[in-house]
Amino acid sequence: MISSTANKQVRRVVNLVKKAKTRREEDLYVVEGIRMVSELVPEQTEQIYVSESFLKNKAREELLSGFSWEAVSDPVMKTMADTQTPQGILALVKQKHYSLDELLQPSSAGEKAHILILETLQDPGNLGTILRAGEGAGITGVVMDETTADIYNPKVIRSTMGSVYRVPFVYVKDLREACQKIKKAGIHLFAAHLGGKNSYDREDFTVPCGFLLGNEAKGLSEPIASLAHTYIRIPMAGKVESLNAAVAASILMFETARQRREGVMART
Amino acid sequence: MISSTANKQVRRVVNLVKKAKTRREEDLYVVEGIRMVSELVPEQTEQIYVSESFLKNKAREELLSGFSWEAVSDPVMKTMADTQTPQGILALVKQKHYSLDELLQPSSAGEKAHILILETLQDPGNLGTILRAGEGAGITGVVMDETTADIYNPKVIRSTMGSVYRVPFVYVKDLREACQKIKKAGIHLFAAHLGGKNSYDREDFTVPCGFLLGNEAKGLSEPIASLAHTYIRIPMAGKVESLNAAVAASILMFETARQRREGVMART
Repeated sequence: MISSTANKQVRRVVNLVKKAKTRREEDLYVVEGIRMVSELVPEQTEQIYVSESFLKNKAREELLSGFSWEAVSDPVMKTMADTQTPQGILALVKQKHYSLDELLQPSSAGEKAHILILETLQDPGNLGTILRAGEGAGITGVVMDETTADIYNPKVIRSTMGSVYRVPFVYVKDLREACQKIKKAGIHLFAAHLGGKNSYDREDFTVPCGFLLGNEAKGLSEPIASLAHTYIRIPMAGKVESLNAAVAASILMFETARQRREGVMART
Repeated sequence: MISSTANKQVRRVVNLVKKAKTRREEDLYVVEGIRMVSELVPEQTEQIYVSESFLKNKAREELLSGFSWEAVSDPVMKTMADTQTPQGILALVKQKHYSLDELLQPSSAGEKAHILILETLQDPGNLGTILRAGEGAGITGVVMDETTADIYNPKVIRSTMGSVYRVPFVYVKDLREACQKIKKAGIHLFAAHLGGKNSYDREDFTVPCGFLLGNEAKGLSEPIASLAHTYIRIPMAGKVESLNAAVAASILMFETARQRREGVMART
């Protein structure tokens, strides 16, 4: 059992939790908690760490069968974990790498593209929440520029509630180029934009579509917004100027889900 | 100028930022940042504090005219503020107190009730985001039990982006009793619930309505859920079991806004 916080493995986990650079170099990320770990298979898992207290419940050892795992003292677990009151289990998981081409390939299930394109979305909680809501709304992928938050940040991972395992995503160097490629694939690009004439619920989202979403404070940059086929707006009462990014994304994604479920186009 | 963090006023502000109990006792709360402070009027404002650096820009003094204000050193501002990089201005603001009766009174503008009822919603970010989205969707009020997060928590205040000034809200001792009163006022209660038969977009939200929303982890308690006239669900793809509370609330509130804007009932 590891009981010293000076242990090399402990230092490594702490760095993986804290530093995007270490995560990139090691091609790993850290997930915490029974729920998130129980969705893992051994092939994608490098190592599991469990605390002494966690192991006191014998039934829990079953969860670990087939995995490479190691016990640590409770104080060591507290040092490694990103949460204030760790559940006593965390795993080092191999990162997934999708290409933009894979993400744009028509799915075998025949579902139409439903993509989110994020420009400089910086709040980890927002990114995680978007992934979770996105899976629920049936999105087919997320495209992000490199100034968007790191999807493997522990706060993102937590707020995805497991959707990070299932929703395809890709970081692109050049978002402009990526948007052009997406358009060439026959996908209609919508941008939530103050210049939008039509309310979002009057557009047809039953076609293959992508939604451009910008930074929490600044919105979309003009060079990216100008690539959209259509500007849309979410009508707003009161003095509200904008919505939280995850809220705005969810309203658009669930309107898309609704239209596709009902098989109806926009209500006009 | 106050330059010691041991100063009595500084200790007071720190307590108001950190402790719900102090906020209740003093009937005050703290708002930070130019944007939030610039929406205040002197009548609702007890005191404004500005940092030395803030005052270097002379034009900013205009913002303070009519208010009782005091300058503090930059380190003192950092001690008082809840944010990592304070903008250099914060205000002590008088709390607002609405009654449930006021909140249920038909508005002079003739708008129909559109109420959110929150049971043990504990994440301050979620509560603030719901208020902000709610104002945008035209809600007429928020009813909360006492185990819901404190609306005057600085994190809530920040994420409301000013909506805390404008959306009526009330904390009630007995949520069950409050729901019964709301129903007696002719408001149809909907609960987002796994037992819901109808998808949310198939219900009529053009009538006066209230939405029951539960705790992030546990959902609604049965005694509260059972008070709803109608259970609804948000259809979900993938393996997602539930949505973030602010996302779920926003989907329902903006569907209500959409139906009322279009003057159409549910799509059936």
